Amino acid sequence: MAVIPAAGATGTTAWLDALRRRCGADVHAFVTERVREHFTGRAAEAPAVTALPEFVTGGKFLRPMFAYTGWRCGGPESAAALRAAASLELLHCFALIQDDVMDGSARRRGHPAMHVRFARWHESQGLAGSAQRFGESAAVLMGDLFLVWSGQLLHESGLDAGALARGRAVYDRMRSELAVGQLGDLVNDARALPSWADVLDVIRRKSGDYTVRRPLEFGAALAGCADDVLAALGTYGGLLGEAFQFRDDLLGVFGDPAVTGKPAGDDLRERKASSVVVLAADLASPRQRAELTGLLALDAVDAAAVARWRDLITATGARDQLEKLIDERVRRALEAIDLVDLPGPATAALTVLARRCTERVR
Amino acid sequence: MAVIPAAGATGTTAWLDALRRRCGADVHAFVTERVREHFTGRAAEAPAVTALPEFVTGGKFLRPMFAYTGWRCGGPESAAALRAAASLELLHCFALIQDDVMDGSARRRGHPAMHVRFARWHESQGLAGSAQRFGESAAVLMGDLFLVWSGQLLHESGLDAGALARGRAVYDRMRSELAVGQLGDLVNDARALPSWADVLDVIRRKSGDYTVRRPLEFGAALAGCADDVLAALGTYGGLLGEAFQFRDDLLGVFGDPAVTGKPAGDDLRERKASSVVVLAADLASPRQRAELTGLLALDAVDAAAVARWRDLITATGARDQLEKLIDERVRRALEAIDLVDLPGPATAALTVLARRCTERVR
Repeated sequence: MAVIPAAGATGTTAWLDALRRRCGADVHAFVTERVREHFTGRAAEAPAVTALPEFVTGGKFLRPMFAYTGWRCGGPESAAALRAAASLELLHCFALIQDDVMDGSARRRGHPAMHVRFARWHESQGLAGSAQRFGESAAVLMGDLFLVWSGQLLHESGLDAGALARGRAVYDRMRSELAVGQLGDLVNDARALPSWADVLDVIRRKSGDYTVRRPLEFGAALAGCADDVLAALGTYGGLLGEAFQFRDDLLGVFGDPAVTGKPAGDDLRERKASSVVVLAADLASPRQRAELTGLLALDAVDAAAVARWRDLITATGARDQLEKLIDERVRRALEAIDLVDLPGPATAALTVLARRCTERVR
Repeated sequence: MAVIPAAGATGTTAWLDALRRRCGADVHAFVTERVREHFTGRAAEAPAVTALPEFVTGGKFLRPMFAYTGWRCGGPESAAALRAAASLELLHCFALIQDDVMDGSARRRGHPAMHVRFARWHESQGLAGSAQRFGESAAVLMGDLFLVWSGQLLHESGLDAGALARGRAVYDRMRSELAVGQLGDLVNDARALPSWADVLDVIRRKSGDYTVRRPLEFGAALAGCADDVLAALGTYGGLLGEAFQFRDDLLGVFGDPAVTGKPAGDDLRERKASSVVVLAADLASPRQRAELTGLLALDAVDAAAVARWRDLITATGARDQLEKLIDERVRRALEAIDLVDLPGPATAALTVLARRCTERVR
């Protein structure tokens, strides 16, 4: 794997960047092949043929990076292991596309969301029925394809049957948790306001474990790591995953649209019961809480409401509190991996990734 | 596998019935375990905990029966192979649940469809937002779970790594074809009226190949069958799959609701561009075609419109013509398997299954 420079204290960032490029190239090539295999040029397939390969290269590739770092806790540099790690990016594409349908999010990664692309195509062709409904159904199917292709890329990665059998248990667990967690998310969003405990539970199962812990455990299982390593990665992953989601939720409220690629205060507009929103309600004075409840009940959230909501959240102390929770979790995560004997490059990568996940601006 | 009596010319029906029962028990036990693993008693999960195990046992288990018959073309009776075959029933549950969302079908297998169950739960809890939208999103997720669990059951079936690696290529191909075929279906339904060629193309890719051909090839690949056997099963499966779908489409228009578990003329009410509808338009006189076009343009299709539509379809000769196409395809399918040397029980099962698929009333 000459494309990936050796990892080390100084070269870790370059190593992770090379990983991301290589994963991006792998999934793009794989999806392009699948599109060529299954779409045979009918007009109806035009949006899929363009959108699917485009979609897979726009991400941060965090999950493959964690998976490959997990692999490097017990395995050598390996193009096959990198492809197996990249399969998690296709799983992530599945989740994003279907989540956007469910949340009614119009944009993703600076482009129209998948369901919007198909709805526009339906309109441009003058087809019968609701364009929105067609777009949503087609997007669900594109999500399904990514879920199928994730499994296919894993099994065609080139890893041997023993490694694949070890990795499958984590892979399957993670995929079920993702769907069950998303169901919990839907229910939380449909409640007036869920409890902090309910929000933490969904964060753990859907976002946190799915983003950091399971990918790490998946890679380490593929490599056949010992139980103490798996346990340390599990602790690091659980803590860092929560911190990751807290940062995500802060960006969903306070993020800069020019950087996140999403509208300002997107989570507020969608009335998402995210950690920062629920924590603000927990910390609010009776008067602040009444005002928060009023904002939650609005039919449409305009720019002025977003600004007021942001100020209120800050005033409750929820923003500062969440920043503290992030710092505390990152510190404990790094302590957990210090207790086991990992290869130097893996420790270095885990340290850099902990910062990337929690200090990011998008 | 004492539960499955020996197959033979006389015992084939009993053998297939035992297969179905055993598959039903396998998937029910597997799904019950998964529900126990991933749903931990939160109130929000109540509909899933009840609906998921219930859903998996209501089907005809055609795809597992074809897969296991394919296996028996080269392998011995095997509980592991039967579990691998049963994984296709979970794949089918995934497809049915998401199709029902996309088609807006309110009932399935004599019960409310999955999205209707979750929508009713949302209403009963007095949650915020649209109950319909919540129901549809939750049902998509339940479909996703079945897709994930299908792969998990396959990999935990107990078959060895060599067999699984042989079967994966067909399994992956079939899953992609299913999603791509469903996209074609959506597009056909959104057109004023697609061509007969477009309808045949979707039937081949989505319904026909998915119901008969790929399951047979999947089982035969797991067993390591020779190329000539795979080719004969492919021919049989392609032809019989089309005949199966023609029968399905006839039932969608002319079926008895008390037997099919769906409303009378369901496909007409949903304005499905099914084979019988499109063939009727092809065979119609100009005057009949004008009347068919009028029916297709109705905002709501009531019982009188269904009755008129049925009469018109019969009058065009499309019903008789489709019956002839079914007979012809069944005959050619059985000829194809006569040309290769298959184990007696497999040939007997393929003969019985050909009738079951095309002479059924539900």
